[in-house]
Amino acid sequence: MAGLAGGGGVRLRVSDLPTPSLVLDTAALDRNLSRMAEVLPGPRLRPHVKAHKCTALAARQKDYGHSHFCCATIREVEGMAAAGLGEDLLLANEVLDARRLGVLDARVTVAVDSPETVAAAVRGGVRECLIDVNVGLPRCGCAPEEAGRLADQARSAGLSVRGVMGYEGHVVGLLEAGQRRQGCEASMLLLKAAHADVGGEVISAGGTGTFDCNEVATEIQAGSYALMDTAYGKIGLPFEQAFCVLSTVISVADRYVVADCGLKALGMDHGNPDVPDAKVWFCSDEHLTLAPNQALKPGDRIRVLPAHVDPTLAYHDRLHVVDGDDVLEEWPIDLRGW
Amino acid sequence: MAGLAGGGGVRLRVSDLPTPSLVLDTAALDRNLSRMAEVLPGPRLRPHVKAHKCTALAARQKDYGHSHFCCATIREVEGMAAAGLGEDLLLANEVLDARRLGVLDARVTVAVDSPETVAAAVRGGVRECLIDVNVGLPRCGCAPEEAGRLADQARSAGLSVRGVMGYEGHVVGLLEAGQRRQGCEASMLLLKAAHADVGGEVISAGGTGTFDCNEVATEIQAGSYALMDTAYGKIGLPFEQAFCVLSTVISVADRYVVADCGLKALGMDHGNPDVPDAKVWFCSDEHLTLAPNQALKPGDRIRVLPAHVDPTLAYHDRLHVVDGDDVLEEWPIDLRGW
Repeated sequence: MAGLAGGGGVRLRVSDLPTPSLVLDTAALDRNLSRMAEVLPGPRLRPHVKAHKCTALAARQKDYGHSHFCCATIREVEGMAAAGLGEDLLLANEVLDARRLGVLDARVTVAVDSPETVAAAVRGGVRECLIDVNVGLPRCGCAPEEAGRLADQARSAGLSVRGVMGYEGHVVGLLEAGQRRQGCEASMLLLKAAHADVGGEVISAGGTGTFDCNEVATEIQAGSYALMDTAYGKIGLPFEQAFCVLSTVISVADRYVVADCGLKALGMDHGNPDVPDAKVWFCSDEHLTLAPNQALKPGDRIRVLPAHVDPTLAYHDRLHVVDGDDVLEEWPIDLRGW
Repeated sequence: MAGLAGGGGVRLRVSDLPTPSLVLDTAALDRNLSRMAEVLPGPRLRPHVKAHKCTALAARQKDYGHSHFCCATIREVEGMAAAGLGEDLLLANEVLDARRLGVLDARVTVAVDSPETVAAAVRGGVRECLIDVNVGLPRCGCAPEEAGRLADQARSAGLSVRGVMGYEGHVVGLLEAGQRRQGCEASMLLLKAAHADVGGEVISAGGTGTFDCNEVATEIQAGSYALMDTAYGKIGLPFEQAFCVLSTVISVADRYVVADCGLKALGMDHGNPDVPDAKVWFCSDEHLTLAPNQALKPGDRIRVLPAHVDPTLAYHDRLHVVDGDDVLEEWPIDLRGW
């Protein structure tokens, strides 16, 4: 599934890793996967691999019973198929050139929201689709009242329409659980109405923030729950931060220190990362300036907690799976690119 | 130097590229390189490869007369040495483990700002250093008044001290040229004083925003000037935007469209990208929602101009060098990672 780090019997320690390095706590990961699988067993969860872009982590999710996966890019679908994880892959995104999808040895379903994306799926040799419905987030998805007509067009063009999808992305990050539930309900009313017009057995929706309050979806597209980040950490979910960017203090001044973890090791759209027991000042390309509560010296290691998991993982080429100070495995982040 | 795209005589067009793709206008690049080389010929410029992480682009910079390069990571130094561009490589950053530097077939100089980083350089087999001086940016660098003593320590430890460096990073992005000049002068007074205590022939400083107003530095560490971004585009420099992220419109709604260029294709710390003739609303992982001034349909291509070049390039694995609609070359972004 993934090469053991420090092969040949040599034990690799976290303290030996070069920095910056992504470090994943295997026990915390397992707790997150276990909690989710209890609430959403088997195909009730369609784990979104865009959050981690790592087939080895997807295989771990499969160990917890989920074998239908969600992808955001063609490259993710290709990589999952190549890794033998292609039992049921949903590309929950619109594509205008589907040729690379039609040739895969996998069950591939693609989202469509226009006659053009229907035509592209047909041209590319894709055989199954979901009608993507706008449920409130101004992104992809047709208007709910157009879903039935688009489904008819898709069927006329030869596609099998498995149902609908609609992502309540404007709701998943709301701080209050009650607000998330309320917003999710409003979105799912739209999706339910569209589904009545479209038919099919699938209603695919949801995310980590609405995993337990979406009563309409037949499957939830959650991704962040496995690793988590500080943004999702603020909204009271039963998942814990399972990864960090390990970093080394490289410079010390009177009021601050500087660590080797910068903009190129962190998704920054949600703002600065957190560092336990320190106040983060700012990030540069390869630097993090922070004021620690306790004295640090050059060479000390710190754990940096990213604000947004998805664009953080996309900067790194591997995840180090650790148990305490032992590095157990190195998982390639092999679904990067497009 | 880099493989021709679409080999075997097949002509590859920009309109055939998958998206999102980094596209570099070869003529604009040459104009930028030429303008810089006129003002700062040969070793007066030490191009910073962190901005592009691309040895093929560094080789183009060498064609314009610059053969001494600046790096931000050990990986960048390694890659430049492996590409035969190791005549004079400055790692303008502190490292606590320099073992990978000491073994390179290249002239390697490392920045030091503490006894610990001096000791690390010696342990790692590095033979030359610059004393990194804090000239106002709260990041790395020793206090100016400590530079002389640190230089003595470095020499006692067996290092050759080539001089000083000090990056006025708090000044390079100021909007007004007069403010940049004034701020740069204040910083360079500190660096000059430190240099008097340290000695050596090198005073390394500056960036794209101060390339023509830093009167103290013997060499300028500019990187962004080659490709540019919308942040540097606002401050009135004689360099032009030479690259973009080519993206496809994948969904169209009444008031907005959605393109396939998101957080994982863009450095976001400087904010949203610009799209000519459109108003950008927001970015998601793989999406850009924008309101175009003219009607667009699914399949149309748009050019997305990132706000910050360095963390944008670090997400991509190649640059497509183009002349009009012809793709001339594909340059690997081969210095990514650490």
